[in-house]
Amino acid sequence: AARLRAFSGPTIFTEMTLLAQRTGAANLGQGFPDGDGPPAMLAAARAAIDGGMNQYPPANGLAVLRAAIAGRRRADHGIDYDPDREMVVTAGATEAIAAALIGLCEPGDEVIVFDPLYDSYAACLAMAGATAVPVPLEFDGTRFTFDPDRLRAAVRPRTRLVLLNTPHNPTGTVFDRAELAHVAEVCREHDLIAVTDEVYEYLTYDGVAHVPLAGLPGMWERTLTISSAGKTFSATGWKVGWACGPAPLVEAVRTVKQFLTFGTGTPLQAGVAHALTHCMDWVGELRESLQRRRDLLVKGLNAAGARTYPAQGTYFVQLDARSFGFTDGARFCRTLPHDAGVVAIPSMALYADKEAGRHLVRLAFCKSEELLTTAVERLGRYA
Amino acid sequence: AARLRAFSGPTIFTEMTLLAQRTGAANLGQGFPDGDGPPAMLAAARAAIDGGMNQYPPANGLAVLRAAIAGRRRADHGIDYDPDREMVVTAGATEAIAAALIGLCEPGDEVIVFDPLYDSYAACLAMAGATAVPVPLEFDGTRFTFDPDRLRAAVRPRTRLVLLNTPHNPTGTVFDRAELAHVAEVCREHDLIAVTDEVYEYLTYDGVAHVPLAGLPGMWERTLTISSAGKTFSATGWKVGWACGPAPLVEAVRTVKQFLTFGTGTPLQAGVAHALTHCMDWVGELRESLQRRRDLLVKGLNAAGARTYPAQGTYFVQLDARSFGFTDGARFCRTLPHDAGVVAIPSMALYADKEAGRHLVRLAFCKSEELLTTAVERLGRYA
Ligand SMILES: CSCCC(=O)C(=O)O
Ligand SMILES: CSCCC(=O)C(=O)O
Repeated sequence: AARLRAFSGPTIFTEMTLLAQRTGAANLGQGFPDGDGPPAMLAAARAAIDGGMNQYPPANGLAVLRAAIAGRRRADHGIDYDPDREMVVTAGATEAIAAALIGLCEPGDEVIVFDPLYDSYAACLAMAGATAVPVPLEFDGTRFTFDPDRLRAAVRPRTRLVLLNTPHNPTGTVFDRAELAHVAEVCREHDLIAVTDEVYEYLTYDGVAHVPLAGLPGMWERTLTISSAGKTFSATGWKVGWACGPAPLVEAVRTVKQFLTFGTGTPLQAGVAHALTHCMDWVGELRESLQRRRDLLVKGLNAAGARTYPAQGTYFVQLDARSFGFTDGARFCRTLPHDAGVVAIPSMALYADKEAGRHLVRLAFCKSEELLTTAVERLGRYA
Repeated sequence: AARLRAFSGPTIFTEMTLLAQRTGAANLGQGFPDGDGPPAMLAAARAAIDGGMNQYPPANGLAVLRAAIAGRRRADHGIDYDPDREMVVTAGATEAIAAALIGLCEPGDEVIVFDPLYDSYAACLAMAGATAVPVPLEFDGTRFTFDPDRLRAAVRPRTRLVLLNTPHNPTGTVFDRAELAHVAEVCREHDLIAVTDEVYEYLTYDGVAHVPLAGLPGMWERTLTISSAGKTFSATGWKVGWACGPAPLVEAVRTVKQFLTFGTGTPLQAGVAHALTHCMDWVGELRESLQRRRDLLVKGLNAAGARTYPAQGTYFVQLDARSFGFTDGARFCRTLPHDAGVVAIPSMALYADKEAGRHLVRLAFCKSEELLTTAVERLGRYA
């Protein structure tokens, strides 16, 4: 289909993981951990396979999983959702985003996104026939953030929704209450829907707290909050995600997703239900371990003379390719596997404004300390 | 979104399964078996969870699964596909159908479907902005089939593809070589793509053979063949499906599905790879057992005075609600759970031409003999 032509070919993540496999380079590209999730979660999924939980799940997800999600939102943020009407389980956050954009946008609608943006957003907007209107995230000397005036200026007559990712991939920014208040104000003032991608909600560092946009005044009733088990429980291949929000928004997602996939892996849903209820201590340890690994990578890169940008959350830090004598991060990333034995993602691939992201390169630190140490040594020699 | 308004609310399958749960009725509605798949397949999935196969699969599916799919197509039908370029793993056949229709249709395109049709087809066509052009399947005294002239007459200037389901849900027809030759002729003559949903390919009875459209002269190069593990291996909740075809068609599916879900349950893919390679004897036994269960249900219904329509394949037989004094199958299906303790699907829900399907009711025989016997007794008392 013509509207999707720009999206054909493998994603940048697929391309880079294949390159890592072909070259044997240390893969700090695609965001997946090389360690496993909580043993009790794995055991619960195995037990579900053994226990005959292998047929269609309900289209809105296993009841036990929806109850567990509701329990977490309440315990962690004091936000209430009715598991039957205000929640739907999806094939990862990816499907929730696709179904939300296809289900909520009319052809010709405009959607405000923050640039850089995760690759699936633009593709799903194209499927919906909607247009992305990017608001740039710029480095303010401390972290990547947006100018509230540019956000306000992005609202136009056909604007339908704001799509927000926090903690933000690839910049590592965890939007704070003041920033979210600007988003909330714009949404309330112009009666916009907010769709938030919060898959890294539990992966924040240095005591920085994740703030759900749905918790801000007047926002619960207009916010669809999307998250998933993949990153929280190191199970990116299980594809168990969800969307929570007021019934009409959830209904839009459910309408679409019941025809995209109908449901997602029944026994894996059972595993995730167990994890959300019993494995949050494990997540606390993961967070601490990821913070240590982020520090290992950043210190190593800095010692090698590379400029990095601070990350408050996610799996990722960005570096400046110019530290290695490259003005173009994409060229740097094509060279690196062969010349240094490391795979990274050119952030430019995620930028609408290619110039703004040209020099930026994303490295994943959700990898073993051993692999990170190897990568640091290799990048040090290459610098 | 306005184009999807007609599809909001739970699907007929969800609605009827909820009704079965609420009333405690025997659920012969939604098509899922109440027995489990091959033990070796379950063991392989558990071993994959244990063995650290819990991160993102490749977007086109695990290599071992694609090799197994290619092996089956070759062994069973002598049809060759390159596992790297001519195959993609999806979140069930449902996602393959969604991605194919979204990826191959331009807004305004027309797609020929056979009426009745599985519920997701129309919804996905609406997402793509395409229009379904139904060709009726009519009972010819033996089975449901189409008039080749009506098929030819359905081709118009904007016709893009023919969407064919064989073995066919809900009629149970397994299209034979002569019928498929008509489809092939129309496709070749008008340069149409064929998309086939063959999820019941191994569930055929009385020695009737499933014939893949892709095997007909001139059809490999224009046919996208979709199937899945759900029905073949009694694992409808695992959501492991695939699409095979010439590279450009597969590429269209992959482009869309990498943004709908990216991938599907990694350890479940490993289980299915094992099953396709090692568990086909188990499938042979399943087929025999399903044939016996079909016969149990049909004989029981006929003994109770109900008219049934022969099924050559799938999980389903249809009956005529008029045998029970109902002209409207939907009213019959709403009454039945409460008054007889049985849940069935009004075939009308799957018909574009509601009048044509008004009297037809679908019953699933992929259930235990015990449940089928109970259902037969209850329907007998109700008749
Ligand atoms: C689905 S592949 C991309 C994984 C990811 O979240 C990332 O690397 O940004
Ligand atoms: C995905 S729910 C529908 C299951 C099915 O294939 C059917 O009952 O026809």
